[in-house]
Amino acid sequence: VAAGDPEAAHDFLKELPPGEDARVMAQLSDSEQQEFITLISDENAARLMESLPELQAGQLLSALPPEQAAPIFDEMHSDEQVDLLDQLPKSQSAAILEEMDPTAAENVRFLAQYDQLSAGGLMITELLAFEESESVDDVVSNLRQNAEKYGAYNVQYIYVINSELQLTGVLRLRDLLLAPPQRQISKMMITNPTSVLDSTGLQDLQHFFDAHPLFGLPVVDKNNKLVGVIRREDVEQAGEEQAGRTFLRFAGIMGGEELRSLPLKTRSARRLSWLSINIVLNVVAASVIAMYEDILASVIALAVFLPIVSDMSGCSGNQSIAVSTRELVLGVIRPRDWFYIFRKEFVLGMVNGIALGVLLGTVAYLWKGIPALGLVVGGALALNTLMAVCLGAVIPLILKGFKLDPALASGPILTTLTDMCGFFLVLSFAQALLPWLT
Amino acid sequence: VAAGDPEAAHDFLKELPPGEDARVMAQLSDSEQQEFITLISDENAARLMESLPELQAGQLLSALPPEQAAPIFDEMHSDEQVDLLDQLPKSQSAAILEEMDPTAAENVRFLAQYDQLSAGGLMITELLAFEESESVDDVVSNLRQNAEKYGAYNVQYIYVINSELQLTGVLRLRDLLLAPPQRQISKMMITNPTSVLDSTGLQDLQHFFDAHPLFGLPVVDKNNKLVGVIRREDVEQAGEEQAGRTFLRFAGIMGGEELRSLPLKTRSARRLSWLSINIVLNVVAASVIAMYEDILASVIALAVFLPIVSDMSGCSGNQSIAVSTRELVLGVIRPRDWFYIFRKEFVLGMVNGIALGVLLGTVAYLWKGIPALGLVVGGALALNTLMAVCLGAVIPLILKGFKLDPALASGPILTTLTDMCGFFLVLSFAQALLPWLT
Repeated sequence: VAAGDPEAAHDFLKELPPGEDARVMAQLSDSEQQEFITLISDENAARLMESLPELQAGQLLSALPPEQAAPIFDEMHSDEQVDLLDQLPKSQSAAILEEMDPTAAENVRFLAQYDQLSAGGLMITELLAFEESESVDDVVSNLRQNAEKYGAYNVQYIYVINSELQLTGVLRLRDLLLAPPQRQISKMMITNPTSVLDSTGLQDLQHFFDAHPLFGLPVVDKNNKLVGVIRREDVEQAGEEQAGRTFLRFAGIMGGEELRSLPLKTRSARRLSWLSINIVLNVVAASVIAMYEDILASVIALAVFLPIVSDMSGCSGNQSIAVSTRELVLGVIRPRDWFYIFRKEFVLGMVNGIALGVLLGTVAYLWKGIPALGLVVGGALALNTLMAVCLGAVIPLILKGFKLDPALASGPILTTLTDMCGFFLVLSFAQALLPWLT
Repeated sequence: VAAGDPEAAHDFLKELPPGEDARVMAQLSDSEQQEFITLISDENAARLMESLPELQAGQLLSALPPEQAAPIFDEMHSDEQVDLLDQLPKSQSAAILEEMDPTAAENVRFLAQYDQLSAGGLMITELLAFEESESVDDVVSNLRQNAEKYGAYNVQYIYVINSELQLTGVLRLRDLLLAPPQRQISKMMITNPTSVLDSTGLQDLQHFFDAHPLFGLPVVDKNNKLVGVIRREDVEQAGEEQAGRTFLRFAGIMGGEELRSLPLKTRSARRLSWLSINIVLNVVAASVIAMYEDILASVIALAVFLPIVSDMSGCSGNQSIAVSTRELVLGVIRPRDWFYIFRKEFVLGMVNGIALGVLLGTVAYLWKGIPALGLVVGGALALNTLMAVCLGAVIPLILKGFKLDPALASGPILTTLTDMCGFFLVLSFAQALLPWLT
C-alpha cells in the first residue's frame, strides 16, 4: 500500500485468505485504508465492503468523499447498500445518493423505508420477473442474452407477474429444462406461490425457512405487488448477527456492536453510558449496607461475606437470564409462559440455593468457629439464590412482554435486586442472631 | 392428543404456525409427547424432529423404544441423523442403528467419525454424482426418472467423478439447459472445481461462504474422493447455534445449551458445577478483606464501597471480554494481536476509569464529608477499572491461544482478579491514608 501501486494492491487483495481481510484492514491506519480503497477497482472495493463487518465498512466509507464512495455503492447488492448507508451520517448518505446512479439511488430510497429486520429490509430487488403471456422460449432466450448480468443474481426462481405487477406464479429454473419451448409460462407455473409480506419480521422468516427447504421467497406489498426476493442466506446471516448483538448487549455494550477500530470517544461514551446507570444502581444497593453499619461494626467478619453472597446470587440469576433469553430467541417460550417458567425455576433455585448455602455456611463456620455465622451466611445465600434464579428467569419475559430489550436490561435490574436483597438478608439475619455472633 | 386420533393429530400439526411446534411440544408432558409422535407418520415426525432444537428432539427420541425411533431416523437428512444420535446415550444410539435401514446406518457411522463443527460433520451425503463418460442426455434422463427422489435433495449442482470416485468437475443444473444432448459431461464441466477438505473447520467455512456466492460446496477427503456436499444453510445455521452457545457459556451454562424441559437433575448439576468453581474463587478473593479486618473495623464506611468497586470493575471488564470474544468470532482479531488490543484498551480504561473514579469518589466524599474517603474509593475504582478493562480484553485472546474456551472461562477468571485487586486497592489505600480517614 505504501508504494501506491494499484497492481500490487490487487494482487495483495487476491492473496488474502477469505476472512483475513477484516483483520488486515483493521490493522491499517485510517489514511492507509483510504489509500488502499482508491487503489483497487470499484467492484473489488464493493466486494471488500460486503465482506467486512458493517460497522467497519461504514467507518471506512465515511472517510471517503461522496464522489468516490458513490461508484463503490453502485457495485454493491441492494440490501448491502441500504445497510451501509444507514451507518453513515445523514448528510453524507444524502450526498452519496446524489452521486449514485439515479435508478439505484431511487431503489435505495425505496428499501430504506423498511425496518432493517423485516422482509423488506432484508430482501434484494435483483430478481427475474416475466409477464404471464410470455413463452418458455421467450424466457430462455432472455436468459441466454443476459447470462452475464443474471449470473451475478444467483437466480433460482423466475417470478411471473400480471400487468399490475402482482405476483401470480413462480417457476423453478430447472422446470424450464423439461418444458416444450412454445408453452406459455402461465400454463406451467406454480400458481398461488408462497410469498411473504414486506412487513414480516426476522423471527417469523427464520421459522419459515426452518420449516421449508427453499432458497428464496418472493416478497410482496399489501397489494400483492412483487417488491423483492428474500434469500435464505440473508435471513440466516441476520439471525447470526442478532445472536452476536444479543451477546454484546448482555455484557453491557449499547447498540450491540463495538469494534476496536471505532474512535475512542464513541467507544468510551457507549460503554460509559451503561456503566453510569450501573454505578447508580450499585450505590443504591450498597446503601442497604450503610443502614446496618452498627451491626457490621460489631461482627466485622460479615464484611467478607457480603460481596460473596451478592456475587454468587448474581451468577445464579445470570444463568437463568441467559437460558430465558436464549429460549425466547429459539421461540421455545413466550412472555405469557412466565408462570410455567417460574415454577420450573423455583425448584431448581431451591436445590442450588441449599447446595450453595450449605457450602458457604460451612466455610464461614469453620473459619471463625461460630455456628451462628454459618447459619446467617448460608441461610442468606440459600434464600437469595432462590430469589435470583426465579427473578432471572422471569425478568427477560416481563421485559419482552413490554417490548423492551431483555438482553440489555435484565442484567442490571437483576444484580441491583440481588445485591440489595443479599445485603439485607445477611445483615438482618445477623441482627436477629446478634447475641450468638459475638 | 388426549383422544388418540391420528387424523386430528395430523391436522393439528399442519395448523401449527411454523416455529410454534417447539413451544407446544415443550408444554406437553413426556408421555403426551410420545403419544403424539406415535400418532403422526414417520415422515412428519422426522420433519418435526428436524425443526425442534437438537436438545429437545434428543430428549423426545430417547424416550421412544429403538424400533419406533429407527423409522423416524430413516426419514431424516443424513446430517440431522448424526447430530441427533449424538444426543442419545451410547447404548440407545447403537440399538437404533441396528434397527435402521442398513445403508443409512452405515452412512451414519461414516459421518459420525467427523467433528460436528467440521465440513465432514456438517455435510450431507445426499448428492448427485455422475461419471465423466456420461452425456448430457444420460444425466437429464436420469434426472427425469428420479425427479421425485431428487426433489427432496434440493439439487443445485451435479458433481462429476472419475472411476476412483475422485471429484473431477462440477456442472450447474442450469448449464444443462443450454447444452446439446449428445455432449459428454466431462467436455462441458467446470474442471478443478472448488472443494473443501472434510476436516475444514466451521470458521473457515463461514469465511469461504461469505466470500463466494455459492449454495453448496463439494467435500472431499484427503485422497480427493467426493464424500459429501456442504450447503451454505448448514454452515450458517451452525454459526448461529455457535453464537447462541457462546452467549450461554458466557453466562455460565456449561456445554452452552439448556432447555427448561430437561430433567431437573441435569440442569441443576450443570449450573452448580460452574457455580461451585465460582464460589471457591469468590472466597479466595474475599479473603483479601479478611486480611484487613482491622482497617475495616476502624473505617466501617469502607464496607459499603467494597462491593461497589468490585462490581463496577467486573462490569467494565466484562464489556471488554464481550468485545474481544465477538471480534474473535468475527475474525477481526487473532490471539497474536494481543499487544495491539492491550494498547487500544489501555487508553479506554484510563478514560473510563477516571470518569467512574471521580463519580464514585465524589459520592463518597459528599456522604461522609471526608475528602480522604473520596480519594481512597475513587482512586481504587479508577485503577481497578483500568486493570479490569485491559485484562478483560486480553484474557479471551490468551485462552483462545491456549485452545481454551474464552466464553466460558474469561468471566470467572476476570472477576476473581478484579475482586481481589479491588478489595486490595481500597483497603491498602485506606491503610496508607488512615490518619486522614478517622
